[in-house]
Amino acid sequence: MENAAPTHDWGHRTAELLEAVRARAPLVHCITNTVVQNVTANVLLALGASAAMVDVATEAGPFARVADALLVNTGTPHAEPRVAALEAVPAARDAGTPWVLDPVAVGSLPVRTALARDLLAMHPTVLRGNASEVLALLGASAGGRGVDSTAGTEDARAAAIAAVTSSDPGPVPGQDGRLVDAVAVSGPVDLLVAPATGVVRVANGTELLTRITGGGCALGAVVAAFTAVSPDDAGAAAVAATAVHTIAAELAAQEAGGPGSFQPLFLDRLASLTPEQVVRTARITVESAAVPA
Amino acid sequence: MENAAPTHDWGHRTAELLEAVRARAPLVHCITNTVVQNVTANVLLALGASAAMVDVATEAGPFARVADALLVNTGTPHAEPRVAALEAVPAARDAGTPWVLDPVAVGSLPVRTALARDLLAMHPTVLRGNASEVLALLGASAGGRGVDSTAGTEDARAAAIAAVTSSDPGPVPGQDGRLVDAVAVSGPVDLLVAPATGVVRVANGTELLTRITGGGCALGAVVAAFTAVSPDDAGAAAVAATAVHTIAAELAAQEAGGPGSFQPLFLDRLASLTPEQVVRTARITVESAAVPA
Amino acid sequence: MENAAPTHDWGHRTAELLEAVRARAPLVHCITNTVVQNVTANVLLALGASAAMVDVATEAGPFARVADALLVNTGTPHAEPRVAALEAVPAARDAGTPWVLDPVAVGSLPVRTALARDLLAMHPTVLRGNASEVLALLGASAGGRGVDSTAGTEDARAAAIAAVTSSDPGPVPGQDGRLVDAVAVSGPVDLLVAPATGVVRVANGTELLTRITGGGCALGAVVAAFTAVSPDDAGAAAVAATAVHTIAAELAAQEAGGPGSFQPLFLDRLASLTPEQVVRTARITVESAAVPA
Repeated sequence: MENAAPTHDWGHRTAELLEAVRARAPLVHCITNTVVQNVTANVLLALGASAAMVDVATEAGPFARVADALLVNTGTPHAEPRVAALEAVPAARDAGTPWVLDPVAVGSLPVRTALARDLLAMHPTVLRGNASEVLALLGASAGGRGVDSTAGTEDARAAAIAAVTSSDPGPVPGQDGRLVDAVAVSGPVDLLVAPATGVVRVANGTELLTRITGGGCALGAVVAAFTAVSPDDAGAAAVAATAVHTIAAELAAQEAGGPGSFQPLFLDRLASLTPEQVVRTARITVESAAVPA
Repeated sequence: MENAAPTHDWGHRTAELLEAVRARAPLVHCITNTVVQNVTANVLLALGASAAMVDVATEAGPFARVADALLVNTGTPHAEPRVAALEAVPAARDAGTPWVLDPVAVGSLPVRTALARDLLAMHPTVLRGNASEVLALLGASAGGRGVDSTAGTEDARAAAIAAVTSSDPGPVPGQDGRLVDAVAVSGPVDLLVAPATGVVRVANGTELLTRITGGGCALGAVVAAFTAVSPDDAGAAAVAATAVHTIAAELAAQEAGGPGSFQPLFLDRLASLTPEQVVRTARITVESAAVPA
Repeated sequence: MENAAPTHDWGHRTAELLEAVRARAPLVHCITNTVVQNVTANVLLALGASAAMVDVATEAGPFARVADALLVNTGTPHAEPRVAALEAVPAARDAGTPWVLDPVAVGSLPVRTALARDLLAMHPTVLRGNASEVLALLGASAGGRGVDSTAGTEDARAAAIAAVTSSDPGPVPGQDGRLVDAVAVSGPVDLLVAPATGVVRVANGTELLTRITGGGCALGAVVAAFTAVSPDDAGAAAVAATAVHTIAAELAAQEAGGPGSFQPLFLDRLASLTPEQVVRTARITVESAAVPA
């Protein structure tokens, strides 16, 4: 619990972690779906991180060792990126590279669901998804029909808490025997859960993030970038990444004429976001500084 | 012919179908080329529909059953999406999911041409392409050199009429024994042909749609979204989708400084398009309310 | 050396070649990574060229014969585009289609590095990359960690000069026994090297090109488009393409609010760039009109 911050400090902590991302420019290895590869790379670059989409076998493993963080997103689970993911994650774990699992549309779709379950057993640093995806992957529901969530973020609260306090280490033990180090449930109000963070909510954002493709998928990459500068506190990385992403989106929405003009403005605001804007705009609340028993 | 609308009603009918798309938010299953996956998803989201790019085998079939419409675009016909397409289309037909075939660059390129012919034999709800593609697929020419059309839309008029009145049911009979229910030929003036619609032309649009990639491919997805709310009249879906797409493009072009700024403006105009704008701006003419014999 | 232009003429020559691209609208066959396919196509269309991403086997070879130029980019070297590339390049060479090799992130990543070496042995018309990539491919270093360059363009000067004056014809002889006809090293100041051009530097551009994905990859496609209108002088194509690309970027940066708004503005400026703007803005210097011995 030594890393837990009191409520009023999350704005400052987010700003500090943003500055750390920009100072270090972490190289984020992305194995992600072909629909959002471009926007994901652009979001990482606008943030001040670096991106590389290395998604073929024999390259993905070695690259996960030298990258600063890894994202695996199951959106278009073709055979080659599946093999790449199953090669990259063990390499990342072995090398101490933090990694994020984004189980896009898991539930009834068999290929990605099997893949995401195999990956979950390797203990992601952060599990990020919408409520339907998180619930389906954690075994608490059958999932939504497609990429949109039919469940609310609060519906996933209990499953998320259980995942970060699990006593079942699985085939390869996670840190301290947990299934995952942190869970990030995206929605109108984002829910972040981790042992050292407690249950935190981020109320920033805009409905326009749901009117473009990649709004959530790119957040998975942003979370990965933040884990690189917060190696001992995945929950803080998840909170700060979510706040930065949704604050930039919120500021962009104020100027946007629709979902089209929102996208370039979002990248502009992400690139220009100042620590002062973060502190002033963040709407982060802490339900409890520790995960409820 | 009971669904045929008199000329002056197409603007209102288009506006009504647009409202229906926004009310229902149909989930459009897209198996499309990797170049335009992102813009296709963004166009569907801006329109008010939902999009999912499920293009791997064993997922594509079940998903086509629960989706509200299916698009198959042959632009980058890799092995996995080919198998996915050949799994999705029979499932869509079996479940009554309307589906659109967009035969990108068929003609001399052997992989996509064979695929598109196999798919055509499964009787698309709507066949959408430029004139060269439509002519090549319907056996009336050898096709263009690449993705651009070398034929004019009027060149495809006879072949399109034949396709919607065909008496050859193929291996799996289409509705009423037709090869396809409707044909949408894209060009400076779009040509729409269907039994209940007749021969209709939409004169909206902008040359900028040809200066960006995906201008036509995304229209295929928009047509699919409209078929979901016009299940018994594929021709009306094709007319309304074409009008909405090209009107939004026309309005965007009035503000655009070039092909780059046109793209976000196009999404903005698609999202904000009002029924009044549709009625006021539509330039839809009916050559005949029935397909000529 | 008969094609070498004096220093003060490069602005005019660039403008002339830009006009030639627009007049001919060359069809550029792209086998490129999935991250940048969309932006690459849009850059080519904004430039006035045509684009087709034909990256499956049995299609790529025949298409390379009819295309006006070919680009092979190794960014996401999946099995199907690898086979397509190895089919397209011999066809291009046989048909006289100029082709550009963009060895994205070669060095320590084994799949793309082996592919790029196989392709290099087929004598690209132009080799384009950042300094780390060019050095790694030409055997002069182990390459960078990812897609960003850790070496400066001047570090690649000697290796580039050696590549265009090589006496080793490899398994398939290049033009006049050279390894490549021209080398384009991208960076803050671009370095272009070719026998008939000498050593040329283009100092246009903007740091924003490094804050978006595809800034360099799209340049590879632009170079390919220019080789189509400069068949006997690959060096001139590389200089003119680099100047047009970086001038458009520089003009866009003057209006951009960040990396997001930069992208549509870049396409707008590329589409609207006048010969006068080229001549007025180009900062092209010639170190020597012939390659140093």
